[in-house]
Amino acid sequence: MDDNRFEKGWAVLMEVDGEGGQRVIESLKEIAPDLGKYVVEFAFGDIYSREGLDLKQRQLVTLTALTVLGGCEPQLKVHLKAGLNVGLTQKEIVEAIMHCGPYVGFPRVLNAIFTAKEVFQGE
Amino acid sequence: MDDNRFEKGWAVLMEVDGEGGQRVIESLKEIAPDLGKYVVEFAFGDIYSREGLDLKQRQLVTLTALTVLGGCEPQLKVHLKAGLNVGLTQKEIVEAIMHCGPYVGFPRVLNAIFTAKEVFQGE
Amino acid sequence: MDDNRFEKGWAVLMEVDGEGGQRVIESLKEIAPDLGKYVVEFAFGDIYSREGLDLKQRQLVTLTALTVLGGCEPQLKVHLKAGLNVGLTQKEIVEAIMHCGPYVGFPRVLNAIFTAKEVFQGE
Amino acid sequence: MDDNRFEKGWAVLMEVDGEGGQRVIESLKEIAPDLGKYVVEFAFGDIYSREGLDLKQRQLVTLTALTVLGGCEPQLKVHLKAGLNVGLTQKEIVEAIMHCGPYVGFPRVLNAIFTAKEVFQGE
Amino acid sequence: MDDNRFEKGWAVLMEVDGEGGQRVIESLKEIAPDLGKYVVEFAFGDIYSREGLDLKQRQLVTLTALTVLGGCEPQLKVHLKAGLNVGLTQKEIVEAIMHCGPYVGFPRVLNAIFTAKEVFQGE
Amino acid sequence: MDDNRFEKGWAVLMEVDGEGGQRVIESLKEIAPDLGKYVVEFAFGDIYSREGLDLKQRQLVTLTALTVLGGCEPQLKVHLKAGLNVGLTQKEIVEAIMHCGPYVGFPRVLNAIFTAKEVFQGE
Repeated sequence: MDDNRFEKGWAVLMEVDGEGGQRVIESLKEIAPDLGKYVVEFAFGDIYSREGLDLKQRQLVTLTALTVLGGCEPQLKVHLKAGLNVGLTQKEIVEAIMHCGPYVGFPRVLNAIFTAKEVFQGE
Repeated sequence: MDDNRFEKGWAVLMEVDGEGGQRVIESLKEIAPDLGKYVVEFAFGDIYSREGLDLKQRQLVTLTALTVLGGCEPQLKVHLKAGLNVGLTQKEIVEAIMHCGPYVGFPRVLNAIFTAKEVFQGE
Repeated sequence: MDDNRFEKGWAVLMEVDGEGGQRVIESLKEIAPDLGKYVVEFAFGDIYSREGLDLKQRQLVTLTALTVLGGCEPQLKVHLKAGLNVGLTQKEIVEAIMHCGPYVGFPRVLNAIFTAKEVFQGE
Repeated sequence: MDDNRFEKGWAVLMEVDGEGGQRVIESLKEIAPDLGKYVVEFAFGDIYSREGLDLKQRQLVTLTALTVLGGCEPQLKVHLKAGLNVGLTQKEIVEAIMHCGPYVGFPRVLNAIFTAKEVFQGE
Repeated sequence: MDDNRFEKGWAVLMEVDGEGGQRVIESLKEIAPDLGKYVVEFAFGDIYSREGLDLKQRQLVTLTALTVLGGCEPQLKVHLKAGLNVGLTQKEIVEAIMHCGPYVGFPRVLNAIFTAKEVFQGE
Repeated sequence: MDDNRFEKGWAVLMEVDGEGGQRVIESLKEIAPDLGKYVVEFAFGDIYSREGLDLKQRQLVTLTALTVLGGCEPQLKVHLKAGLNVGLTQKEIVEAIMHCGPYVGFPRVLNAIFTAKEVFQGE
């Protein structure tokens, strides 16, 4: 049932993103509540809940995707905290961002590293 | 020394990418030999040789970066084989590509999945 | 229920994309069957089934997104046919692609136009 | 004549973008006045003035292009107001942005939705 | 006058891109003739005809833009020949593409270099 | 030797980017010092130090790459000043950015032009 996907997704969202993710969903309530519902159901209820990769591996993939896309600093902040939440170390996160250098160049990597610096210092 | 970076990089390139990577470097010899040198030295001698992430984690990051960038099918093919070389399972690779869906949408994910299908079937 | 989303999505997929969409889902069966399921459920069962825009407007948005992304020629072909299926004229499709010129430049527009030419001539 | 294209383009710019567009052109006067001229002449005098799609359809395409590109928040703000100016409802605009989700993922869509929220609340 | 822009643009297109550019314009005749007109008028009549940068500098910029965008191999082929037409050496072109490495990573650079190899060998 | 690449790179970085570049490297010290080292060694020690293009040509390529990528305003600011440092005129820089218009569209070009306006006015 849809309710099931939402509930399962919400539990994973809270485990992974915590308050940061909750705030994103809530900030959508006035303008596009169904968008928040889809994020919870599809991104977290369907995808994050799958077997085959653990949450640390999934956060590595998410952080890489956001680094490469560029212009996603708000989402990157949420998922940098999420990375720490699921057990990645700051060192592993920095390594993953740096690893993108040969594939997407220094500007995207620098933007992500400075966002990480901001998040890590705010801890 | 530079020679050291090249030798170290070449050893990692051979371990990770194997013949596929070697062919890329060789195909650069006539037109831009130094580009091949930089790929070996920087991507493999500097970055892949770092501690902090193991080779399976590094391939997860690489495969994600190439999936998100789009239009990198030749590089994706080399690194899909590399993923298998360093011990990722086909299932883990498929999961990593699918995990990108909520972040970059279905078209980039479909392109990467069909490239993976081609590589896995050619094994 | 999930089954409901899939069935609803499949009906919309068949109405919009027809055989081209069906082939995409089927070609995923061996390698990533759940990805096909998510495309049907999320893209078609959730999004395409929403009110607020009619199918012609939705295809305008889809065709624009694929034109701007670049490197999505296979998806563009499916959705060019889908555009005609839901009632867009060839002229409207060409206009929509051309309208992207000032926003994304000529190369992305030329690639989409030549893909459209191929699809229209194959009709 | 060129003058004609500029005059026609200016009239369309004023109809579509209003003051927001005018401010962009004026802010270019010191640094790159001809760039403003080309925006007026090519984007509005040539493209927006064409037949084949009405202004609401053209704004759907523009808003989609800017959502997908990413990093174009200033232009998106101008064109969100333009969308309302030519008769799109807030609901239609939100639907169009959400429709991009399956094609470009949630981060680009969230960025555009929050920009829309800001514009709509400032009305 | 518009005719003037087209004529001026056509002369520059022929000087810069030669037959390759002409073929692009002609291939648009059936599907989107006005798009070809805009390419000639805006890209060549307006932009390429400007003072402030010579044609070699302009081709450096064009080749970089196409390398960075990715997925523009057909346009890159036309402009690689154009680079040689206006006096860039093969060495300068290869250097310009390689210079993009630290900014956009190796995959986009490799794709452009292999396209250049193909064009240079076909000479 | 590696030391050599760093020293050579640092000298070129100081010549090209000056204090702006130095600040980027220093701001990496706490979070990812090796990333700063790679920027100096690879981008400046390896690539910028090559023959085949002079520093003005290399800055044209860099400025174009950053304009096309989008979302790289901090890097663009550093390299706009670098462009002036190596002898490009404001007019040449503006022309190079405008030249990107037909290839990547107005939004990326407007973002780069407004960044240039800010940098030039701060001089």
